Amino acid sequence: MSAVSKSRDPDRLVLFTDAVVAIAITLLVLPLVDLVPEVKDHGGDAVSVITKHRQEIFTFLLSFVVIANFWLGHHRIFEHVRVYTAGIMRLNLLWLLTIVVLPFTTEIVGAFDSDRFVAGVYIGTILVLSICQSALALLVHGHKELETPDNPVSRRELTGSLVLTGFTLVAFLLGSLVPGINFYAMLLLLLPTPVMRVWR
Amino acid sequence: MSAVSKSRDPDRLVLFTDAVVAIAITLLVLPLVDLVPEVKDHGGDAVSVITKHRQEIFTFLLSFVVIANFWLGHHRIFEHVRVYTAGIMRLNLLWLLTIVVLPFTTEIVGAFDSDRFVAGVYIGTILVLSICQSALALLVHGHKELETPDNPVSRRELTGSLVLTGFTLVAFLLGSLVPGINFYAMLLLLLPTPVMRVWR
Amino acid sequence: MSAVSKSRDPDRLVLFTDAVVAIAITLLVLPLVDLVPEVKDHGGDAVSVITKHRQEIFTFLLSFVVIANFWLGHHRIFEHVRVYTAGIMRLNLLWLLTIVVLPFTTEIVGAFDSDRFVAGVYIGTILVLSICQSALALLVHGHKELETPDNPVSRRELTGSLVLTGFTLVAFLLGSLVPGINFYAMLLLLLPTPVMRVWR
Amino acid sequence: MSAVSKSRDPDRLVLFTDAVVAIAITLLVLPLVDLVPEVKDHGGDAVSVITKHRQEIFTFLLSFVVIANFWLGHHRIFEHVRVYTAGIMRLNLLWLLTIVVLPFTTEIVGAFDSDRFVAGVYIGTILVLSICQSALALLVHGHKELETPDNPVSRRELTGSLVLTGFTLVAFLLGSLVPGINFYAMLLLLLPTPVMRVWR
Repeated sequence: MSAVSKSRDPDRLVLFTDAVVAIAITLLVLPLVDLVPEVKDHGGDAVSVITKHRQEIFTFLLSFVVIANFWLGHHRIFEHVRVYTAGIMRLNLLWLLTIVVLPFTTEIVGAFDSDRFVAGVYIGTILVLSICQSALALLVHGHKELETPDNPVSRRELTGSLVLTGFTLVAFLLGSLVPGINFYAMLLLLLPTPVMRVWR
Repeated sequence: MSAVSKSRDPDRLVLFTDAVVAIAITLLVLPLVDLVPEVKDHGGDAVSVITKHRQEIFTFLLSFVVIANFWLGHHRIFEHVRVYTAGIMRLNLLWLLTIVVLPFTTEIVGAFDSDRFVAGVYIGTILVLSICQSALALLVHGHKELETPDNPVSRRELTGSLVLTGFTLVAFLLGSLVPGINFYAMLLLLLPTPVMRVWR
Repeated sequence: MSAVSKSRDPDRLVLFTDAVVAIAITLLVLPLVDLVPEVKDHGGDAVSVITKHRQEIFTFLLSFVVIANFWLGHHRIFEHVRVYTAGIMRLNLLWLLTIVVLPFTTEIVGAFDSDRFVAGVYIGTILVLSICQSALALLVHGHKELETPDNPVSRRELTGSLVLTGFTLVAFLLGSLVPGINFYAMLLLLLPTPVMRVWR
Repeated sequence: MSAVSKSRDPDRLVLFTDAVVAIAITLLVLPLVDLVPEVKDHGGDAVSVITKHRQEIFTFLLSFVVIANFWLGHHRIFEHVRVYTAGIMRLNLLWLLTIVVLPFTTEIVGAFDSDRFVAGVYIGTILVLSICQSALALLVHGHKELETPDNPVSRRELTGSLVLTGFTLVAFLLGSLVPGINFYAMLLLLLPTPVMRVWR
């Protein structure tokens, strides 16, 4: 498919993406806001809003970090993009759908005890996000008509993206299939950075 | 009415439009987020959040695709716009109103059994959106003072927009008037793309 | 106070303003979205979501039109602004505060029977918005260091803004002080446009 | 760490930041919107929405002013930034996290009687925000490769930022440790401006 954009682009896609990410990352706080009147209605005090809802607060923080990191990654890829195709646009919309779904899966993790299903839904969402991001990097990499000439996607960046996707896949399989692991599988997602550092 | 904008435009209108679309498409997830504490309060588990609310999840996905596609169409039209008139601006605001209403009609579809009324409200919203989009394309097409000189609205794009509006009208009439069809009428909206391909 | 901005401005203020307006205008739909599960929980059907909540739907539409119109007015003023002072920035933030408050006053109008208090709160919010907008126009008008040289604020625009503010003040006084008028006072806001046309 | 961005930056970071701030500042109104049906369900009238919830309305206004002021401060710092490093980016994300958390702490302040815990949580959030802002100013100040050459961070701006952080720290300690002071400690935050004026 041919390049769609000549003027004003890829800025418009990038701005739209940033707006959706900004909204999704900010909406994460709404379930915490809703906790307050609920705690009050049940006679709780201000301290118990925090102490009795550590799980919700922790998953809020976790999802904030997840979205922020994928935004940074998206940012790095689009540094290299000069024009974009309908393919990039559709893939980007799938990436955005996953971002929009994250406040929902975050709420599931915050509300229910962690088991394989809950861990699978959450890590699965991150897996889809990571696959989209790697696919975007692959789509741009080595396509001279898409890349900014003086700043192409480096082999290293592409590898980094694929390594992260690989680790997320393993985390997803462990968390959703092996009983008792659940969210501990996400610790695997801390590994790609040191791995890539050794690789150098 | 004369052209309103000289500087900073049509970028400001486009950015405002993108921001509203980004918010509306992200707000679609809020009713799903609200499902979680509700299911929990009724003693449901994490699996039932998904399995017992397939209708809500499906309409969420449907509306995401609808908004994303209209945004892509809007994007294509405004690729051709150099300056804009008060008429374009007001028409664009009507387009935006319909986008803002979509999370409401989505929620109606997600909550109630589908009948002619529910299908009519939902497909009707899409019809208004589609009429606005066609009117925008018609308003810009062939007006040299509005179009970017090297990139005018093509006859083909205009036809494509009108064909989509025509199919949406038929879908609306079938879904809201003929008993038993309801949302199956929306399958008609899959036709314009192959139709336009044959047309070529 | 001296000019604050040299680079990237007033674009950043304008973009921030547009983002807040876009969010506020889209948030207006949330109370409508929340109606749906409420109606369903009380055994209502899809038709009654619309027929029994005409007041909420009407005030939603009214506030959409109000915000859209003030955004258009703001847009026109900032067409003329080249750099901005701390004064413009603070005044713009007050304008934004009023926009952010509008979903709250809209909800009050939608939920309660109209009386002088409800009309006063709603028209009062619009009055503050209109005063800010006129003050912005006054602040920029005739200040060569702020205006774009080839596109200053015209006398006519300034008069139009002040006339609108005057009519809003009268509407506010009538609606909040004279029993039985309430929201009919807002019909006065339809007058400034024909008045300005005769003026010409 | 080396500079991350060459093209389109720091605009993308700044735009993303503005979007998150715009959303957070607008979301502040949602708890007020939610008050309306609640008051109505309990048989209250429109006047009591305002008169019986002065605390919520006041904290809404307070947080609006707090977010607006930090946005203005952020704005001033980024006037000086030409390119940014991964360090600035991560620090900016921490700043954003604090902004996103503010609607939550605002709701706690609005719902519960003020005591040392509530005051500590709220002023503590502002303290983190202020520390991030000072750290951003420090990071940029005197780094020729980051600053715009004709518009570096002035010594005075840096001092102003540090003085504000200092006063916020004292306010936090007083409000969260000394019984009976609570939110009166925030009056200290009015001092930095006159202090800096004398300093000149």
